[in-house]
Amino acid sequence: MKKYIDENKDRFFEELFSLLRIPSVSARAEHKGDMIKCAERLIELLFEAGADEAGLYETKGNPVVFGQKIVDPSFKTVLVYGHYDVQPAEPLEKWHSDPFEPQIHDGAIWGRGANDDKGQLFMHIKAFEYLLRSGKLTHNVKFIFEGEEEIGSPSLPDWIRDHKELLSADICLVSDTTMMSESVPSINCGMRGMAYLQVDVTGPNKDLHSGHYGGAVANPITVLCEMIATLIDKNGRVTVPGFYDKVVELSREDRDMLARAPFDMQEFKDFLGIEEVRGETGYTTSERIGIRPCLDVCGIWGGYTSEGAKTVLPSEAHAKISMRLVPNQLGSEITELFAKHFRSIAPKYVKVKVTAFEGGDGFLIPIGSDAYKAASRAIAEVYGIEPVPARGGGSIAVLAEVQKILGIDPLLMGFGLERDTIHSPNESYLLKQFFGGMESIAKFYEYYK
Amino acid sequence: MKKYIDENKDRFFEELFSLLRIPSVSARAEHKGDMIKCAERLIELLFEAGADEAGLYETKGNPVVFGQKIVDPSFKTVLVYGHYDVQPAEPLEKWHSDPFEPQIHDGAIWGRGANDDKGQLFMHIKAFEYLLRSGKLTHNVKFIFEGEEEIGSPSLPDWIRDHKELLSADICLVSDTTMMSESVPSINCGMRGMAYLQVDVTGPNKDLHSGHYGGAVANPITVLCEMIATLIDKNGRVTVPGFYDKVVELSREDRDMLARAPFDMQEFKDFLGIEEVRGETGYTTSERIGIRPCLDVCGIWGGYTSEGAKTVLPSEAHAKISMRLVPNQLGSEITELFAKHFRSIAPKYVKVKVTAFEGGDGFLIPIGSDAYKAASRAIAEVYGIEPVPARGGGSIAVLAEVQKILGIDPLLMGFGLERDTIHSPNESYLLKQFFGGMESIAKFYEYYK
Repeated sequence: MKKYIDENKDRFFEELFSLLRIPSVSARAEHKGDMIKCAERLIELLFEAGADEAGLYETKGNPVVFGQKIVDPSFKTVLVYGHYDVQPAEPLEKWHSDPFEPQIHDGAIWGRGANDDKGQLFMHIKAFEYLLRSGKLTHNVKFIFEGEEEIGSPSLPDWIRDHKELLSADICLVSDTTMMSESVPSINCGMRGMAYLQVDVTGPNKDLHSGHYGGAVANPITVLCEMIATLIDKNGRVTVPGFYDKVVELSREDRDMLARAPFDMQEFKDFLGIEEVRGETGYTTSERIGIRPCLDVCGIWGGYTSEGAKTVLPSEAHAKISMRLVPNQLGSEITELFAKHFRSIAPKYVKVKVTAFEGGDGFLIPIGSDAYKAASRAIAEVYGIEPVPARGGGSIAVLAEVQKILGIDPLLMGFGLERDTIHSPNESYLLKQFFGGMESIAKFYEYYK
Repeated sequence: MKKYIDENKDRFFEELFSLLRIPSVSARAEHKGDMIKCAERLIELLFEAGADEAGLYETKGNPVVFGQKIVDPSFKTVLVYGHYDVQPAEPLEKWHSDPFEPQIHDGAIWGRGANDDKGQLFMHIKAFEYLLRSGKLTHNVKFIFEGEEEIGSPSLPDWIRDHKELLSADICLVSDTTMMSESVPSINCGMRGMAYLQVDVTGPNKDLHSGHYGGAVANPITVLCEMIATLIDKNGRVTVPGFYDKVVELSREDRDMLARAPFDMQEFKDFLGIEEVRGETGYTTSERIGIRPCLDVCGIWGGYTSEGAKTVLPSEAHAKISMRLVPNQLGSEITELFAKHFRSIAPKYVKVKVTAFEGGDGFLIPIGSDAYKAASRAIAEVYGIEPVPARGGGSIAVLAEVQKILGIDPLLMGFGLERDTIHSPNESYLLKQFFGGMESIAKFYEYYK
């Protein structure tokens, strides 16, 4: 496929950029129209690549794009999953260039979605196009692109349940994760699930003059901080009762196998600019990310947050809290446990409201399967080194549902790198990975028989 | 003066509104031009009221407005202090009408600065105008209006030191505080000082994907919450070492005298919509506000704070922290103690930056003085009930400096009410208080011989 890439590179960029220019931010209601624009553009791209069929399917949220090419019903069928929605670009002032005006420099594509997941799903469309045009396509290929991954895929499970026939396949191929590093390719064999909630703490019914009331009325920011401070104990463990009940401890062998993936602590700290790591006692950094659940405050706000020194005893304080879950922990159960716990620790001088967002369960992928082996061989050929199996810390909520509803395993061929800073300002995708990914995917079809 | 008010009411409103329409927000650099506009408008109003002299004086910050009318050098001189800067109006969405387009309804003036302090300083200009025009002015009157009160008066002390002669007077009269209630007039006989700092906590050098790092890297929001949670202990006492060292415990007699001011706990709670109060063990609510120092988080922010569920392990978290101080505690000392303490409790996995804003010291006012007695008699006549002495919880940083540099006492004849919600959305000023204040001030001159 290398030659095909060389010959079509500029067109590839133009096509991908047409997707990246659409600010399809699923978290913001104001981008409703952009979601549809982006879905429609994907349909055009699927047809241009050679799909027999491609269309937009309504859901109660953002539309699902489905397209397919049935070459021969007796062939194996690959279901490609991706998502066309992106994370909000804020804080905008930290971007070096417009997040929705993609650029190429320093060997990478820059912009919101360059990697997650427009850049990665695009590799699949182009690998498919190449195989088809060069007469090498010996699979049926189905594409499902959703517009709600970044908000926990609230609509997709129902849609999948309603379209089981249409989606029947042998494997669900996904590029929405990272590799260990440029020199250490890896394949994810498990992902964490997630629970996500917003908590609102209200003290007095209006903002107060901090001089006239300070010291005599509970400050909701202080109370929220006190409550958050109790959520993780001094051993780095989440204090929500029942949180660890369903967590399966990995065997020594499994832990040893995962420990084979190279990890350099100094490099890790230097990359992040930190002096010390912090996490659950008794686990390594890789284990804390890959096989242990955790709780993070993703956002906090309250009171006066602009320039200068405004004195106020605010009425409200808020936080967004995510919990990454490991297989067997159920997102819905943990959400319930957290909400119950958070309400129970609220002191009487404030009111607490807890709102749950959609979450998802974690899952494991068997590494002995034909699909895994084909992916491993493909990547080994392109990268010159066999990929290691890894447990990713991220979450793709809907894949556990795919596994349950369609009865097929996901296969995570991700080509992102940590340096891409997805979800953050200056998201990028290395051209080397972009093209290496396309090649690896094309070869996967070759070996997956 | 009642008759004069009736005859000139509409002109008074138009003049005050011309001040309120100027968004003189000192905390925001973008309002630099508005500060000068507002100062110039004040100079016009002083001349129109009958000042011999009025002008704008440059400082390193916003200009000072000074004006005067010397009737006879042998007369007593009253120095009127006020400030023409206002607090930021945010959150704008909570205002029922434009904060800078004043309105009159429900018996009050509505808008940012309607009370604090444009509305209150305006009463002094009009009382002066009335006395002068009716031939009753038997004092020299000097006006000093600053434009930096809401940011801690960083420039005024130096300016006062440089203009001691110009400012020489017998008393410094100020309307920038509240009364107990409409039916319980009061005169402030002390105010709290203030220290104000911003703290910035940095974890990783960039925002991170909370799935790829969550559980293995310290989250700066969590760390900030943990640090804030330790600043006040379970007895409601500030834990900064040395914080209480200079606080003078009031005698039983003084506490009994202050306790005479009426206070209804149920009314207090109902007004604020809270079930329980919170504060330092061993002190009443009035004492917690009036005679005890305290610490409040005025603002907190970090990570993703918009709509929806964005997952991120943020790089930074921030908070603005104010401490209200009682007499003898020095703002500069407490600022230093706090900064040192906050840095000392920072764990190794984050970096902490502490930035001090200008603060100020608290002060006491002798209640046996001629000026206090004249104010008490004036208010008693207008309100039909003798005002009680009260210790206000707020801070006017510069008044402790006035006391020290000019050697004269401030006298706090404030006519605001708690219902005015200054510093908050929908600031207002009851017409009854606006006009009652003018009358009381005019009578003060009558009795202050």
